[in-house]
Parts: sequence; C-alpha cells; structure tokens
Amino acid sequence: MSSELASHMLATHTRLVPDFPQPGVLFEDLTPVLAHPEAFRAVVDALTEQARAFGADLIGGLDARGFLLGSAVAYNLGVGILAIRKAGKLPPPVHSKTYELEYGTAALEVPQTGIDYAGKTIVLIDDVLATGGTLGAAVDLLQEHCHATVGGCVVVLEVAGLGGRERLGDVPIAVIGNRGQQEQ
Amino acid sequence: MSSELASHMLATHTRLVPDFPQPGVLFEDLTPVLAHPEAFRAVVDALTEQARAFGADLIGGLDARGFLLGSAVAYNLGVGILAIRKAGKLPPPVHSKTYELEYGTAALEVPQTGIDYAGKTIVLIDDVLATGGTLGAAVDLLQEHCHATVGGCVVVLEVAGLGGRERLGDVPIAVIGNRGQQEQ
Repeated sequence: MSSELASHMLATHTRLVPDFPQPGVLFEDLTPVLAHPEAFRAVVDALTEQARAFGADLIGGLDARGFLLGSAVAYNLGVGILAIRKAGKLPPPVHSKTYELEYGTAALEVPQTGIDYAGKTIVLIDDVLATGGTLGAAVDLLQEHCHATVGGCVVVLEVAGLGGRERLGDVPIAVIGNRGQQEQ
Repeated sequence: MSSELASHMLATHTRLVPDFPQPGVLFEDLTPVLAHPEAFRAVVDALTEQARAFGADLIGGLDARGFLLGSAVAYNLGVGILAIRKAGKLPPPVHSKTYELEYGTAALEVPQTGIDYAGKTIVLIDDVLATGGTLGAAVDLLQEHCHATVGGCVVVLEVAGLGGRERLGDVPIAVIGNRGQQEQ
C-alpha cells in the first residue's frame, strides 16, 4: 500500500530539529523528503490516492508548503492546482477569508475571476494539520465564498491534540504519514 | 512542440490585471492557468522538456510560485524538488544568501543537513524572470554555498528590459511562454 512506503520514506528522510520554533518542540522538516526522488514520489503517490478517493476534480494547495505537494498531486491526477494565497499576493478582485491566529489575524485569497469554482470538488493538500486554522479558513473560503465543494483534506503529518480535526467540521481528513492514522 | 501549446494556453487563460501592483503595469496572473487541467499540463510539460534538456537531476523551486510549477516538473522528471525558501521559514542550520531588493535586502535559504547537494545538477523553476534578483541569488546560494551545479533556469514568462538575463551570468535561461523567446 502506497501509504506504508510513504511512512517509511518519511521516517528515513525527515529532518528532525529539536527546540524549533520554540523550546520543547521537535520540528519535522520535510524539505529533505521532497528533495529525495523516491521519497518525493512515494509521498505524492500516497497523497494522490487519497485525493482521488475524495473525488478531486481540482486540487487546492495551501501557500506555501502545500504548493510543493499539491502541484505534483494535481499533475498526477490530471487536474489543475488552485493556489490558495496568503493575503496581498494576488491582484484584485479576490475572494478573501480572514481567520484568527494566536496573535492577530491572517487571510487567504483566491481570484474572483478567471476560475469557475461552482460545482467543483476541491481537495485541499497541505504538509501538516496542527490547529486547523489555515485549512479551516480555506474550507470556508471555498465553500462559502466560491460555492465549491471541499471533498476532503489530505496532509502528510498531523500534530494531534490541537483540535485540528474539530476545526474542519464535516470535511473528511486523511493523514498519510502518521502511524497509521488514515481516516477521521 | 509543447511550448506552442503552452503559449496558446497561456494566451487563453492568463488573468490580465491593469495597474497592478502600480499604475501602468499590466499584471499577468497565472493562477487561472494553473487551475485549468489542460493548461496546467501543457505548461508543466513544456517546463519539463526544458529542464530535461538542461540535465536536471534535482529541481529547485523558488518560494512560493516556483513551488506551484517545480513540484509537478520534478514529479514528471522522476527527481526531487528542492524548496528554496525565503528567510526564516526553515529550522537551522541553513545555507543562506542575502540579496538586494529595491528597498532593503532579502535572503534565500536551504537546509544545511539532510540533502546532498555536491555533484547535483539543479535546474531552477520560477514563474517570471524580471530583474533576476531572486533567481540570481538562488544560483549563488546553490553554486557558492552548496557546491552544486545550476544547469539552467526555466521560467514561464520574461519581463524584458530589466536586466534579468545579465544577472544570471553564464547560467542558461529558457522561457516557455514569451513570443518564441526560447534561448539565451
């Protein structure tokens, strides 16, 4: 099964950095995974399998690390990649969704013109599910503002215990790299 | 030829936004190109053809729009994608290259550990070549700090007249989308 190979590749190639970004946190840097040919392919193939199962006819990539995964998944599936940008990167007009951060707020944006969202089933791809703040905002942006359906979210890793799954509501989530946690 | 199809798709699906980011500039937003299945595939295939011609055994993607293209190109070629990050995104230790902007400075970073750069031929992918500041800094970062070879740069669009090609020195550049400008 492709997620077993992906888990093995993640265990072998992830760069573990203690005390980043703050003391007591073990940061899992996926950069070497993506730079390794077989590891990158295994991770993309596992993400693709889940995105297909969620019925994707468009992939949504979260700025910026979701772009590194979502682009290859979209190509692999034969669909397009929707760049879900941080505020201020896109020219107007845009659809925008503001959300809360630990300190202050942020926003996600997609173009209002040039893309037909209605009736699309979009599957969101990102590297890590933690608090779910960003993925949750992307779901709201696409469903409430763009009138698309979010078929699911697929991530490489999950940081459990931060309420990420709850933030996503009814949208299913798949995790390809965490000790067999595959489904909600 | 794949670049003719890519040029047609770019002409059809690019979102043209006048007076952004400042009066007199016509901004070419590629977001709808990437979200369109056939256009995305045509652009990725044209980029892949050039990256292969430049001998890529690793793709370097520029943060963040280069990630949207480079990931699929790397998957298509069967190689890895190196995320060349803006400063502050990666945990230490990193290789870092500072460069000049119009106002102030910026820096690009890649991990110092977990990736074997020596002997690699890296081809850089980005959306637009303008002044060449970012691509030039990436070339310096990889060649001077990481002891890799940059086999070439491949971009979708070029804004001529800003000195971008000169900034890249001896590194060849290919442009897939601009009125037949294919080679240096």
